[in-house]
Amino acid sequence: MNSAVGTPPGTSADRAVTLKHGAGGRAMRRLIEETLTAGYAALATPGGDRVIGLAAMDDGAAIPLGDAWLVVTTDAHVIHPIVFPGGDIGRLAVCGTVNDLAMMGATEPLGLTCAMIVEDGFPRTELERVQRSMVEACREAGTTVVTGDTKVMGRGEVDGLVLSTTGIAVTRTIVSDAGLRPGDRLIITGTIADHGIALMAKRHGLAFDEELRSDVAPLNGLVRSALAAAGGAIVAMKDPTRGGVASCLHEMADKSRTCVVIHESVVPMTAGVRSAAELLGLDPFQIANEGKAIMGVRGDDAAVACVLTALRAHALGRDAAVIGECVDGPAGRVVLDTGFGRRLMSEVEGDPLPRIC
Amino acid sequence: MNSAVGTPPGTSADRAVTLKHGAGGRAMRRLIEETLTAGYAALATPGGDRVIGLAAMDDGAAIPLGDAWLVVTTDAHVIHPIVFPGGDIGRLAVCGTVNDLAMMGATEPLGLTCAMIVEDGFPRTELERVQRSMVEACREAGTTVVTGDTKVMGRGEVDGLVLSTTGIAVTRTIVSDAGLRPGDRLIITGTIADHGIALMAKRHGLAFDEELRSDVAPLNGLVRSALAAAGGAIVAMKDPTRGGVASCLHEMADKSRTCVVIHESVVPMTAGVRSAAELLGLDPFQIANEGKAIMGVRGDDAAVACVLTALRAHALGRDAAVIGECVDGPAGRVVLDTGFGRRLMSEVEGDPLPRIC
Repeated sequence: MNSAVGTPPGTSADRAVTLKHGAGGRAMRRLIEETLTAGYAALATPGGDRVIGLAAMDDGAAIPLGDAWLVVTTDAHVIHPIVFPGGDIGRLAVCGTVNDLAMMGATEPLGLTCAMIVEDGFPRTELERVQRSMVEACREAGTTVVTGDTKVMGRGEVDGLVLSTTGIAVTRTIVSDAGLRPGDRLIITGTIADHGIALMAKRHGLAFDEELRSDVAPLNGLVRSALAAAGGAIVAMKDPTRGGVASCLHEMADKSRTCVVIHESVVPMTAGVRSAAELLGLDPFQIANEGKAIMGVRGDDAAVACVLTALRAHALGRDAAVIGECVDGPAGRVVLDTGFGRRLMSEVEGDPLPRIC
Repeated sequence: MNSAVGTPPGTSADRAVTLKHGAGGRAMRRLIEETLTAGYAALATPGGDRVIGLAAMDDGAAIPLGDAWLVVTTDAHVIHPIVFPGGDIGRLAVCGTVNDLAMMGATEPLGLTCAMIVEDGFPRTELERVQRSMVEACREAGTTVVTGDTKVMGRGEVDGLVLSTTGIAVTRTIVSDAGLRPGDRLIITGTIADHGIALMAKRHGLAFDEELRSDVAPLNGLVRSALAAAGGAIVAMKDPTRGGVASCLHEMADKSRTCVVIHESVVPMTAGVRSAAELLGLDPFQIANEGKAIMGVRGDDAAVACVLTALRAHALGRDAAVIGECVDGPAGRVVLDTGFGRRLMSEVEGDPLPRIC
C-alpha cells in the first residue's frame, strides 16, 4: 500500500503546493479536502441538500432544476506540449469537458465556455490551429462554445497556452461515480494508457515501432448509446484521466464504500503501449486516458452483455471489456488479480507525469 | 481618434498574440473576432438562433431553457499581485463572475465553478487566504462554488496562481449590452477607476495621502434592486472592467448602433483616484473597475429618478449618477463633453495596465 497514505496533513513538506498536488491522486484529494472546499459547506445553495456539489468531488456538480438536473463541470488544461500525437490542447479541452458531463449521465451538452490564457508572443498560427481543433471536437460532440474570455500574461509568466473550459448540460437522470455495490461488474470502454504514454513518448522524443497516439475523444455519443441500451443497469461511471485507471477505481471504491477486483489479463491494452510502458518503467494503470470510461453495471449476464454490445457497436467502444467486479471486502480497496496471485493496485501519490492534461 | 483603428488585421506585427490582445480594447476584440470565434458559427447550437452566444460578445451567453434563459459566463483571472488593497484574486474571481451574470440580468447565481492553476512551490497559507476570500465573496453574493479543478504547473511555468471561474444562473428576462437607443440616459453606479488605480499604486509601491482601494464587489444585489424598482426601464447594462468606462461605452455604442455623450464633470471619482491618475499619467476613463455598472435607462425623468433612488439606497450604489445620454449621431461614437468643449473619448488599443484582472 502507498506509504504516504498515512502522512499527517500539514507537515512542513505540505506547506507549499507542489506538483504532486496536481497529479489526480491522493495528495490532490487531500489538498482539495483540507483547503479548497473548506468554508463552502456553511453557505446556502440554491438547490439545498439535493445539490451534488464540491463535497461529492464527482466529475462535476448537479443542481436540481425543476424535474431535471443542471450538470456543470470545469477543467483547466495545462498540457505540455500543446500539440501531441492524436490531438492538441484544444481537442483535449473540449473532450475533457464533454466527457466529465457524460460521466454524470449528461450526454447532450448545452454548450461550453472557454477561458484562454496566452503568453505574450504566442504565435497566432498556433492559436488558430487550436481553435480549429476545438471547433472540430465540438462538431464531433454535437456542441459549441457559447462564451469565452481571453487573457494575456507576460513572457515567462505562463508557458504558452492554458485553456479553462466549463460544460453545462441538462439531464433527467444522474449517474454518480459512487454508485457501486458488491456484485456489480466493471466495464472499461477500450484500451488503457494511450494518452499518457503518447505524451511521454512525444515529450522525450522516443520512437517506437508502433505509433502511439492519444485516445482523446468525446465520449458522450458512446455513453448515450450505452445508457439507452442499458436502461438503469449502468449504476456508476467515471473516466480514468489523471492518475489513470488506478486513481479512478480507488475513487469509485472509496466513495461507494466497496471493494473492487480487477483481472489484469483481460484489461485491453495495445502492444505498443505495453512495451512503451515497460521501457519507460511506468505502470499503465496509473497512466492517463482521455477517451475511456469505466462503468459499473448491475444485473445478470444479459444486462452486462447488453451494455457491452452497445459499446462495441460504437467506433469508440470496439475494445470494450468486462475487467472486474465489486465484491464484499474492505471499503475502498482495489485488488489486482494478476492471474498468478492478487495484490493491491497502488494509486499515484505524487506525479509521475506532470502536465498530462 | 485612435490611429490604430485603421490598422489592417493580419499584418506582421499581429502574427503573435501580445499583451495588447489581453487589454479588453480593440486589439482584443479583433483577435476574438478574427481567430477565436471563427468556425463556431457553422455548428448547430441546442437553442438554435435564440442563443446569445460567442458572436454577441456580451458578458456571457444565454441559452433558452423552457420559458427562461440559462445564463453562463466565464473569466480567467491573472491579476498581479494576487493580494491588493481592497481584495485579492479570490474575491476578484467570484465578483467578476457574479457581475458578468448580473450584467445580463441574472442576479441569482445557481453556482460557480473554479479551476485553479497553481505554480509548484506556491505557499498553502496564501492558497488558504484566497480560498477564504472566495467563500466570503460567495456569501456576500448569495452563491457558492459547486465544482472545481486543480492543476499544478512547474516553477516558472505559471506566475503564482491563476483562477478561472464560470457562473451559471437562470433568469426570465435578459438585459443585453446592446439595447441603447437615442434618448436613453446612462447611469453609472459609483466612482470610476478605483480598481485599476489601486492596483497600479500597489504594484509600484506608490503612497498617496488618501488610501486607494479596489472597488471589487458583487453587484448582483444592487442590480436586483434596480431591476425590481425600474420595471423594464433598464434597457442595457455592462460593467466597465478591463479597458474601463471608455471600452465599455464604445462596446455598448457600437453594438447598439448609437452615439453616446458623457458629461465629464458629473462622472463620480474620488479625489484620491483623480490625483493618482494625474500623477501616473493615466486616463481614468480607461482604467478598470470591478464593482461598478453602467446602465442604460429609457423613459422620462421619473423613470431615471426611480432607478437612481434604488441604486443610492444600496451600499454599493451610494454615488450613482446620471453621466450622459444616447443621441442621434454616428453609430459607435462616444463623445466626452468636458464642459469646455467636446472630444471623442478614446478607447485603449494596447495595454496600459497588464494583468489588472
